[in-house]
Amino acid sequence: MTDRQKVDALAAMAQLLRRHCVEMTTLAGSGHPTTCLSAADLVAALFFHTLRYDVPNPDNPLNDRFVLSKGHAAPLLYAVWAEAGAIPVERLKTLRRVDSELEGHPTPRFKWAEVATGSLGQGLSIANGMALAAKMDKLPYRVYALLGDGEVAEGGVWEAIAFASYYKLDNLTAIVDVNRLGQSGPTMLQHDLQTYARRFDAFGWHPIPIDGHDLTQILRALDEAKSVKGKPTVILARTLKGKGVSFLEDKEGWHGKPLPKADAEKALAELVLTDEQIVLAHSLRVHPPDGNLPANPQSPVPDPQLPRYELGQQVATREAYGDGLVALGKVNPQIVALDGDVKNSTFSEKFMAAFPERFIECFIAEQNMVGVAVGLATRGKIPFASSFACFLMRAYDFIRMAGIGMANIKLCGSHAGVSIGEDGPSQMGLEDIAAMRAIPRSIVLYPCDAVSTVKLVAEMAKYQGIAYLRTTRPKTPVIYRNEEEFPVGGCKILRSSAEDAVTVVAAGITVHEALKAYEVLANEGIKIRVIDLYSVKPLDEATLIRCALETNRTIVTVEDHYPEGGIGDAVAGAVSKEGIKVHKLAVNDIPRSGKPEELMDMFGISANAIVRTVRQLVGR
Amino acid sequence: MTDRQKVDALAAMAQLLRRHCVEMTTLAGSGHPTTCLSAADLVAALFFHTLRYDVPNPDNPLNDRFVLSKGHAAPLLYAVWAEAGAIPVERLKTLRRVDSELEGHPTPRFKWAEVATGSLGQGLSIANGMALAAKMDKLPYRVYALLGDGEVAEGGVWEAIAFASYYKLDNLTAIVDVNRLGQSGPTMLQHDLQTYARRFDAFGWHPIPIDGHDLTQILRALDEAKSVKGKPTVILARTLKGKGVSFLEDKEGWHGKPLPKADAEKALAELVLTDEQIVLAHSLRVHPPDGNLPANPQSPVPDPQLPRYELGQQVATREAYGDGLVALGKVNPQIVALDGDVKNSTFSEKFMAAFPERFIECFIAEQNMVGVAVGLATRGKIPFASSFACFLMRAYDFIRMAGIGMANIKLCGSHAGVSIGEDGPSQMGLEDIAAMRAIPRSIVLYPCDAVSTVKLVAEMAKYQGIAYLRTTRPKTPVIYRNEEEFPVGGCKILRSSAEDAVTVVAAGITVHEALKAYEVLANEGIKIRVIDLYSVKPLDEATLIRCALETNRTIVTVEDHYPEGGIGDAVAGAVSKEGIKVHKLAVNDIPRSGKPEELMDMFGISANAIVRTVRQLVGR
Repeated sequence: MTDRQKVDALAAMAQLLRRHCVEMTTLAGSGHPTTCLSAADLVAALFFHTLRYDVPNPDNPLNDRFVLSKGHAAPLLYAVWAEAGAIPVERLKTLRRVDSELEGHPTPRFKWAEVATGSLGQGLSIANGMALAAKMDKLPYRVYALLGDGEVAEGGVWEAIAFASYYKLDNLTAIVDVNRLGQSGPTMLQHDLQTYARRFDAFGWHPIPIDGHDLTQILRALDEAKSVKGKPTVILARTLKGKGVSFLEDKEGWHGKPLPKADAEKALAELVLTDEQIVLAHSLRVHPPDGNLPANPQSPVPDPQLPRYELGQQVATREAYGDGLVALGKVNPQIVALDGDVKNSTFSEKFMAAFPERFIECFIAEQNMVGVAVGLATRGKIPFASSFACFLMRAYDFIRMAGIGMANIKLCGSHAGVSIGEDGPSQMGLEDIAAMRAIPRSIVLYPCDAVSTVKLVAEMAKYQGIAYLRTTRPKTPVIYRNEEEFPVGGCKILRSSAEDAVTVVAAGITVHEALKAYEVLANEGIKIRVIDLYSVKPLDEATLIRCALETNRTIVTVEDHYPEGGIGDAVAGAVSKEGIKVHKLAVNDIPRSGKPEELMDMFGISANAIVRTVRQLVGR
Repeated sequence: MTDRQKVDALAAMAQLLRRHCVEMTTLAGSGHPTTCLSAADLVAALFFHTLRYDVPNPDNPLNDRFVLSKGHAAPLLYAVWAEAGAIPVERLKTLRRVDSELEGHPTPRFKWAEVATGSLGQGLSIANGMALAAKMDKLPYRVYALLGDGEVAEGGVWEAIAFASYYKLDNLTAIVDVNRLGQSGPTMLQHDLQTYARRFDAFGWHPIPIDGHDLTQILRALDEAKSVKGKPTVILARTLKGKGVSFLEDKEGWHGKPLPKADAEKALAELVLTDEQIVLAHSLRVHPPDGNLPANPQSPVPDPQLPRYELGQQVATREAYGDGLVALGKVNPQIVALDGDVKNSTFSEKFMAAFPERFIECFIAEQNMVGVAVGLATRGKIPFASSFACFLMRAYDFIRMAGIGMANIKLCGSHAGVSIGEDGPSQMGLEDIAAMRAIPRSIVLYPCDAVSTVKLVAEMAKYQGIAYLRTTRPKTPVIYRNEEEFPVGGCKILRSSAEDAVTVVAAGITVHEALKAYEVLANEGIKIRVIDLYSVKPLDEATLIRCALETNRTIVTVEDHYPEGGIGDAVAGAVSKEGIKVHKLAVNDIPRSGKPEELMDMFGISANAIVRTVRQLVGR
């Protein structure tokens, strides 16, 4: 095929993709056709000229990767994969139907999407993770991300841009579809490619501004990107939203609207293709990757030799997190760690010291950190990302999307609760349990000592999905023997007798308060049952119900967290269908700076508070 | 005072501030002295040369504003305000004590802080809001924000940077304390001022790189910033962390560590001040603002004339939100609206059409949007910021900090739940109730029809604090008369009889499902009580308990939200202490694209699902 023929074939393919997008969205009755039309030339060229991909095998580790960051262009994604042979073209008609994997925005239910996108501004971080995995594994694949211009306003994109140049990800190419129009009006920079170029350049990228409808320019830019060394490339493509249809091109008011049937017919009449052009388009193939599959060296991962602790030893659970991670890293080369410039507080620095080549400093940019983790996970890594629990909330929308994308990422939030003390409320994670519980299919773990911490870190690695570990700043005594097991979904009954008046459910730092309260109350002749709810989600409903039924149907929960959505709500939400009474002790107002013990008392989650509550309940 | 004398005086003041910071943190036993030492010269010059501030009256609308974005430099903030006469210098000794307003990171408990900072990367957005308020109100004050270099890695900062230049905020000056060292290691750019300057310049700012310990350069830069027209200025100050103390200067390993007593004594011996210098420092004053207080035109705000609807009329609550906002805007000039490029979906565009000068397009950058709202609120505006519920989660850490800062902001999250249908899970807010409930002192409102929506929008404006409104995409029938009132903390009993077997608690879209279920069950001879829980937080505990006691102690909750932390957990957490049984219906797994009614049925929150559950509970 000559260059001219190739350009003609790609132009025909782009036209074909445009036709699919118009037809699919009109049939579905919703969707974003105009945003697909602007990017059709870019995507046709990328797929049928540049991409190296073993289409039937998306898992082939030699495949280039493509992330559709502008997820609302999903019809274009499905159309191009259909034309590439991934799915029958006929299947495009199922767009947005409840029985179809072709969702309104991509999810991994469509295998070639790999990740969920559609909350804008996240794809480049994911692409960073994929590109970094190639560097780590010395694989030759390249990573492409297609962004909309509107989403470049998202700060997370600039975190990703800074990260990619810092780590010299020259195997990464971003393509920005600068179609000038956002959902509700023009973007900030409209068609000002020069300013985009200056911004990317200042952030250490190689920018290539082009006309995004000129296939010769597109091909040249894509080729150039492959030859740039030491920095990532961005192709800044000036395009028209609705390109190819006269009454849509560069017009406001068409975002997210399918064409009514009559308009669709008019549009298709403009998006003409001769039979010859169709034949030409169909002669295009996605090139498979060069080379053979690397020999798969993955042997079964042996169980880690977890660190051991002495009963009564004072160890902060955040420090045990670092210990546990190192132990996992020794037996599993796929374990990697990420941190947001607090590695000496979260203790991920222990992993960095042991495995510097598997530690990724993400600086103070938690959104990108989580996105990078998602990208790494798509390439088989098991990423553990840590920060203060409250600062992980910075990435909550990324975590939400990771949940929808069923990403296999592990998060550790340290410095949970008022027990951090003097640093004050801005540094206290007090809403993280609520937020992390509300991620579908997540697990939420909250150890109270070093032994349970390292066991739970090992459980996190085994779990396929989003696992969250909450750790505590102050040191706490080891209360478990090293032989104890901590299955996900379990709990530990720490004190129990036939005379227990109440079941006290605690976790993390409050387990120790509950044990102190036990002693005080026992001296008064009041017995309480004490449960360590180390697995907040899933919850050991059966044990909680059984204990409550044995203790006057009464549970007191106590947590270093706000009252909403935390342990108290979780327990009440699970057991109250049995008519069990749940009394919640939690941090009831905005806390402040002070000593940990002062704050725990002031905000009603100390041993004293438990004692007072139990006394009231038993009528003393 | 000659220029030379002024420089000498400011140098002495900086030294004095450094001494305070070392002493305060050593006495407190925790804190971040070295990050204060790097910024002492900048802060001394800013306060005693540039700032125009009526120190005893932080509320004076003519005051310049200062935001300490690098909140961990709180000791420096307290020290400079003490030297400015805001508080007695003696009070500095109370740093981080539980009975002190001098918290580890600033909160508005210290009046001169105005906002809570300490989660890095948020101060510039707040400063944007303050600067924008000055433009709106035609007030001459200027706004200064002091940033750390580490926090410039946060994407939210780049959202703020883009926003400030887009809106030509030439009354805003950012000062970046480029001290090279983050918490756990060097920053990405270390002392590379030129790259910082190129980035800010590309984003439309006027950058001034200086030596941040050279007071002559600092004064010149601060003066220059005041003369720049049409764009904001950033002073990029090269500094040394720990400046002034030989064994701390530019050294790693000292972040967030107070000096042990012996080291503190060594440090103070280096931070010498002659008596003459102390006198000179104490001769400095903060200049009061020029001009007189503007006549306060604030007359009492009349009640808004809310729009009226017909019973049965089909109106989406998101559209009624726009109607309500316009009605408020007509009677209260302080109402402003912000949106993140979805104004035609959230219907904030109605407000824009009515009051274009009070509408702020924030583009797709939700973090900055919330920060701007916080800044506007400090200047007396009542900001309503809207986006899709799920995309507000992008700003969750900003909302968290707004909660700690007791900011008076209003948020509206549209497109809640699977009832949005075909766009799929990335666009569905399914965790927003959990997240927003867990903000201290927030209120969470969730109307089911247009009448309750506009009434609740009016309630939001009256509430002093964070108010969240959840709206629905599809149209729903009006079920309330226009005369109905909807006090915060209330609920509505929609169906009730003496024979009710169960109380069904719904909100928003599920109210209509519950009403359908009522009809089906009534035909089978089963009576249910139906409650519209329009106020999810605070909750009408008394009514819920009373109804449950009248209906076999049984409640069924049904919500278009994940099961964790939503309405079911809220109700269970509130009433289960009475031994009431709560059964939760909620979106139990990752949803998908499909028709709204298909999805509501598939994920178990439809009328059918309610009917099935009630039948089971009554043994049919």
